[in-house]
Amino acid sequence: MDTQTHTSPALTPDVIDRFIEAAGPGGALVGGRDDLEKYLVEWRGLYRGETPLVLRPGSVEAVSAIVKIAAETGTPLVPQGGNTGLVGGQIPDASGGQVIVSLERMNKVRAVDALNNAMVVDAGCTLQSIQDAASEIDRLFPLSLASEGSCQVGGVISTNAGGTAVLRYGSMRDLVLGLEAVLPNGEIWNGLTSLRKDNTGYDLMRLLAGAEGTLGIITGAVLKLYPAPKATETAFVAVRDPQAAVELLARLQDVSGGLVATFEIIKRSGFELVLRHFEDAADPFSDPHQWYVLVELTAGTDGWLRGVLEQGLGGAMEAGLVLDAVLAESETQRQALWALRENMSEAQKLEGASIKHDVSVPVSRVPDFLDQATRDVEAAMPGIRPVPFGHIGDGNIHFNLSQPVEMDPQAFIGQWQAMNDIVHGVVARLNGSISAEHGIGTLKREEITRYKSDVALGAMRAIKQALDPKGIMNPGKLV
Amino acid sequence: MDTQTHTSPALTPDVIDRFIEAAGPGGALVGGRDDLEKYLVEWRGLYRGETPLVLRPGSVEAVSAIVKIAAETGTPLVPQGGNTGLVGGQIPDASGGQVIVSLERMNKVRAVDALNNAMVVDAGCTLQSIQDAASEIDRLFPLSLASEGSCQVGGVISTNAGGTAVLRYGSMRDLVLGLEAVLPNGEIWNGLTSLRKDNTGYDLMRLLAGAEGTLGIITGAVLKLYPAPKATETAFVAVRDPQAAVELLARLQDVSGGLVATFEIIKRSGFELVLRHFEDAADPFSDPHQWYVLVELTAGTDGWLRGVLEQGLGGAMEAGLVLDAVLAESETQRQALWALRENMSEAQKLEGASIKHDVSVPVSRVPDFLDQATRDVEAAMPGIRPVPFGHIGDGNIHFNLSQPVEMDPQAFIGQWQAMNDIVHGVVARLNGSISAEHGIGTLKREEITRYKSDVALGAMRAIKQALDPKGIMNPGKLV
Repeated sequence: MDTQTHTSPALTPDVIDRFIEAAGPGGALVGGRDDLEKYLVEWRGLYRGETPLVLRPGSVEAVSAIVKIAAETGTPLVPQGGNTGLVGGQIPDASGGQVIVSLERMNKVRAVDALNNAMVVDAGCTLQSIQDAASEIDRLFPLSLASEGSCQVGGVISTNAGGTAVLRYGSMRDLVLGLEAVLPNGEIWNGLTSLRKDNTGYDLMRLLAGAEGTLGIITGAVLKLYPAPKATETAFVAVRDPQAAVELLARLQDVSGGLVATFEIIKRSGFELVLRHFEDAADPFSDPHQWYVLVELTAGTDGWLRGVLEQGLGGAMEAGLVLDAVLAESETQRQALWALRENMSEAQKLEGASIKHDVSVPVSRVPDFLDQATRDVEAAMPGIRPVPFGHIGDGNIHFNLSQPVEMDPQAFIGQWQAMNDIVHGVVARLNGSISAEHGIGTLKREEITRYKSDVALGAMRAIKQALDPKGIMNPGKLV
Repeated sequence: MDTQTHTSPALTPDVIDRFIEAAGPGGALVGGRDDLEKYLVEWRGLYRGETPLVLRPGSVEAVSAIVKIAAETGTPLVPQGGNTGLVGGQIPDASGGQVIVSLERMNKVRAVDALNNAMVVDAGCTLQSIQDAASEIDRLFPLSLASEGSCQVGGVISTNAGGTAVLRYGSMRDLVLGLEAVLPNGEIWNGLTSLRKDNTGYDLMRLLAGAEGTLGIITGAVLKLYPAPKATETAFVAVRDPQAAVELLARLQDVSGGLVATFEIIKRSGFELVLRHFEDAADPFSDPHQWYVLVELTAGTDGWLRGVLEQGLGGAMEAGLVLDAVLAESETQRQALWALRENMSEAQKLEGASIKHDVSVPVSRVPDFLDQATRDVEAAMPGIRPVPFGHIGDGNIHFNLSQPVEMDPQAFIGQWQAMNDIVHGVVARLNGSISAEHGIGTLKREEITRYKSDVALGAMRAIKQALDPKGIMNPGKLV
């Protein structure tokens, strides 16, 4: 590590000392002296970077001081939250010339306001701690992710993370009322308003949200809260095909007035992997079916929601969309149904190598997408096992491909780009997105130039250049 | 008019001819030959501009050709929708050197997709026509405004318009899934995606939405649709005070799980004006009360919503928040209750001059705002009659002031800025916004520099400069 300290012309020992001072007491970890490993390696081990310095400022003023030094010296900064991102956006490059700014020490819930349905939080709060703080005042913070115990709010905002509740509540960009951030010139932007309506100019908040740290460092946020649901009804439903699933969603939204909180599609192939690898998993139906949906409705009062769900499912059964359905009769049964969906990734891992896609298409085109993508990858590689699942209500399918049973895992992984090309080609034909919720980072930075219009990319670059003319904010990511 | 044709060095007869050709057959109205009055005067007569030329392109390609000529010649363009804006953003300046681009001929609903809950529309469609098209496929397009018969989608997006359903569905910026726009260099940005999730870079869509035409001309949009509500319950409620109103809202959101679609506060003073000037208006209560709320819940199925509303109101009555309440028993009764709120502006007009404010504060601070603003304006001008009403659920109060009974109307209007200063000062102390839903335009362009941070304004100007370096897009507005 020490040998790389000086590969960046900007990062002299003097500059490092200035950064350390700006970060304040206990605010810096130095390579050689401290163990920086956990900041340098992405959790799956797919991305690894180098840095001589991890800064852990404890206040927005300290972040501002750090960014001002970076702007003056031209030192690239890499903002990092809980280091749970899937596209490498939070990892520095290999040069050793980029400095990590971790927000982990800014982890206070600053204020909660039940009447305004809002809370003000530091960027370093974990998502779980936010959910808990909301729950304490009988409110819901709806965003939920597998990594919620460790991912941090600043990262969740910067990546515009999604999850299983987007259908009902939107993704993170929709759940922010205000932001505090340090812009690339070191200025502190206090946009911590908690207003439902504020029509005074460009939407800087939603511009920084999803910018993956390339336009500034988010240090705090005002988040929207919702009434905590008091009633939940969950069903595991066998549907005729994906088209029937889409039509079932429309029916359930119609009869419930939009109370569908979860609507996840599962194919028999993935379902069987779960049954094979998890001994607690049981097929709720006596007959095998090709497609399933996990559906959940939530509401504020109890006593009528089950009737609404039964009415919707009954009508869909008469229409031939639904072949069979089970409704959870208890929280234990509910969790068992959810496990069928949640253990999908783990089950797939136990089947060998897999190639993953995080894509979206218009909800009404999901059936076409599943048809065409399945046909195309099977034509390209006989024996490949598509295991599509995901948030059909958002048009967001995790189109994952398990290797052919007899194939060498490394040889299969070698086909990653070829499979990407096939699947992303189908997505492009259906006016979809090649990154529905994981972002761009370094993983898709080249790929995106093939699928996003030059006009949009040009506008993005112009904005980046305008706000960060020195290119110090997370260079090499997104734009 | 003709004498002003040449005040802009750019706008030579040759350039005018090029614009006319670019707009296509029937796409140009020329001063002297055609009557341009309706494009030049804001509907209340508060703003008036001059232009030699109104362009009415019929396609995005024609808009692009127009903008390219403007960029080449440095001609300022003023995009215009239905000319219903309240802050002058759609009116050219008095120089005669700015060209109006009206989107009114682009007025087709391009596609509707019930299963994807989305529709693709031209920017020149009226809001009413959008609502109707949604209704035809049993869907709701929720944004609703007084001007919906004439305002156009492009303007509604560019001004991020609000209305009475923001509490439940968000403002226009939240209701857009995709945009098509011509950027200031004349390039066509096709961002007409209808994806619920697309995490591929900066949110250009929400940057252009609310930019008041300063970053480009919106030519088309993909709009979100919702299930059409099948049940509506409406109540007119006498509450103890504004604090009780805010607490009632929280209770109703809690018991209903967020089904409150309307929550409008009305003060006795305004209510009495309606009773005085509208002979059909009747006080639903035998006793006078100081504060009222019009509340409406909507849902997808019938039969249980009334019970939810009654449960919420009953609890609030026991807690002393609600003093009395009437529930609409028929659509006729519902409309009578709504008229008490909707006739407020008209009743106020009949009482002489009024000074208006479109402000917002956090919902929980609305009681403080009403207290302080009322006290401060009454101290400054004895006899002034505050008539506050509006969307308390969004923290958006139309804090309107009727003149003292004996005062000269012009003398009262002469105090507009002094009253603005007082009310906006209270708003600023409560971290509110001086333009909750009407925008900035020319009306608040100076005012905003006193209330918005230099950092935010600096970032806005940098973005404007980056995307519109020649300053041709609606100059003199917003930034």
